Amino acid sequence: MVITLEYDGSGFQGWQLQARGRTVQGVLEQAVKRSTTAFSRVIGASRTDAGVHALGQVAHFDTCTRLDARQLMGALNHWLPRDVAVLDCRPAPSGFHAQFDPSRKLYRYRILRGGVRHPLREDCVLRESRELDLGAMRRCAAMILGEHDFTSVCSAGSSANDHVRTVLRSELLDQGDEVHYMVEAGGFLYNMVRILVGTMIQVGLGKMTPGEFALALGARDRTAAGPTAAARGLTLVRIAYENDPRTGWSADSADLR
Amino acid sequence: MVITLEYDGSGFQGWQLQARGRTVQGVLEQAVKRSTTAFSRVIGASRTDAGVHALGQVAHFDTCTRLDARQLMGALNHWLPRDVAVLDCRPAPSGFHAQFDPSRKLYRYRILRGGVRHPLREDCVLRESRELDLGAMRRCAAMILGEHDFTSVCSAGSSANDHVRTVLRSELLDQGDEVHYMVEAGGFLYNMVRILVGTMIQVGLGKMTPGEFALALGARDRTAAGPTAAARGLTLVRIAYENDPRTGWSADSADLR
Repeated sequence: MVITLEYDGSGFQGWQLQARGRTVQGVLEQAVKRSTTAFSRVIGASRTDAGVHALGQVAHFDTCTRLDARQLMGALNHWLPRDVAVLDCRPAPSGFHAQFDPSRKLYRYRILRGGVRHPLREDCVLRESRELDLGAMRRCAAMILGEHDFTSVCSAGSSANDHVRTVLRSELLDQGDEVHYMVEAGGFLYNMVRILVGTMIQVGLGKMTPGEFALALGARDRTAAGPTAAARGLTLVRIAYENDPRTGWSADSADLR
Repeated sequence: MVITLEYDGSGFQGWQLQARGRTVQGVLEQAVKRSTTAFSRVIGASRTDAGVHALGQVAHFDTCTRLDARQLMGALNHWLPRDVAVLDCRPAPSGFHAQFDPSRKLYRYRILRGGVRHPLREDCVLRESRELDLGAMRRCAAMILGEHDFTSVCSAGSSANDHVRTVLRSELLDQGDEVHYMVEAGGFLYNMVRILVGTMIQVGLGKMTPGEFALALGARDRTAAGPTAAARGLTLVRIAYENDPRTGWSADSADLR
């Protein structure tokens, strides 16, 4: 089965199963077990960090249940807690793998401009009260486009050997009192989006020039880049597969939010 | 002082102080007391129900504090819990009354079309999985405009004697997978917006025609109208006063969300 998921990351220690702590993978595997009466390993496309949200995470699992996809989706949503839901469920084509099949992932990072807390958005934005030079940040966003070695914006905990990634979209949108950084790529390194945002904010604050941003990106050295921006601003918006088993499913409206 | 407030209504038993239960007025009065070291009664413009949210509630209180408005706002936000925040704070003109001064209030009601739970929006929308006839609902929205006796859409618990209100805006917006009902008036009756929405949904479902909606509105009888729609879909977006002490303050971006 292949499932598409929305979750509020605030109450989770991230996607991946851990010895302790509530994880999205953990509550999903429990819901699958309750729905099908048998354990299945659930494999997610992206191992989102604690606090990171998803509007369109994708996962797959094998099951021998006699429930059809529609019934299984109903059962999963019945057993899942209120901060996770299955938006779509269908049989996976033979051999489909959510994590390793070629895909494009779109992330959005929301920066709220202003020092005042906004309770209805607080868990989904990074607040920045200081003035941001959006023009300078836009020049950085443009530099991120294309194929680069992104070692400088990869956290030390990464297990990836190859740090070259191709960014297909890298854009700052002016959304009222928010700025949204939209970034899409075939794959990302550990904490890559959050470090890119943290470094662009340094540029926006005038603590780094766009030229220095270019040098930092090229340095292949994590210490050359800025800090890792807070997880809560980040949302995995959607994942599109090269041969997407979810024809007819659309998350297009999702990236407007 | 006049303050503008945002809150997530999910964790409150509404605005108004109660013998038991957490209320917005209650936590505000506590925060004022901690900030100024003296008790002040906080008067809100709208007594929102349990579960109703606010992007721009307005309230006033008298205080002898030596803190200026900026310092007081900082202190209030320091003491307030994470689901309420003061967005703006300034001295009130002599005699200003948040509840009784002439004002226009804008409410938004969010209907999510589709049967699937969306965890990131669940607390702020009413879900409707059945097909809605938006054209028919729009005809109803148009009938609401102008001056009418709204007895039919006023809950029994109302203390108002005069049920005539003038609606200045009544519009259904198509927002991707949501429908937003935007309604603005000088004043509303108890549960008026939620009953209007509950009745329009009956029309959207084909259980009532627009003609029957007109008759129900004219009947001056609560039993002629439909059910009260769930509180969580409702947000008090903004309040504008005839002589608004908050010149320069704007909630314009708020009604886009």
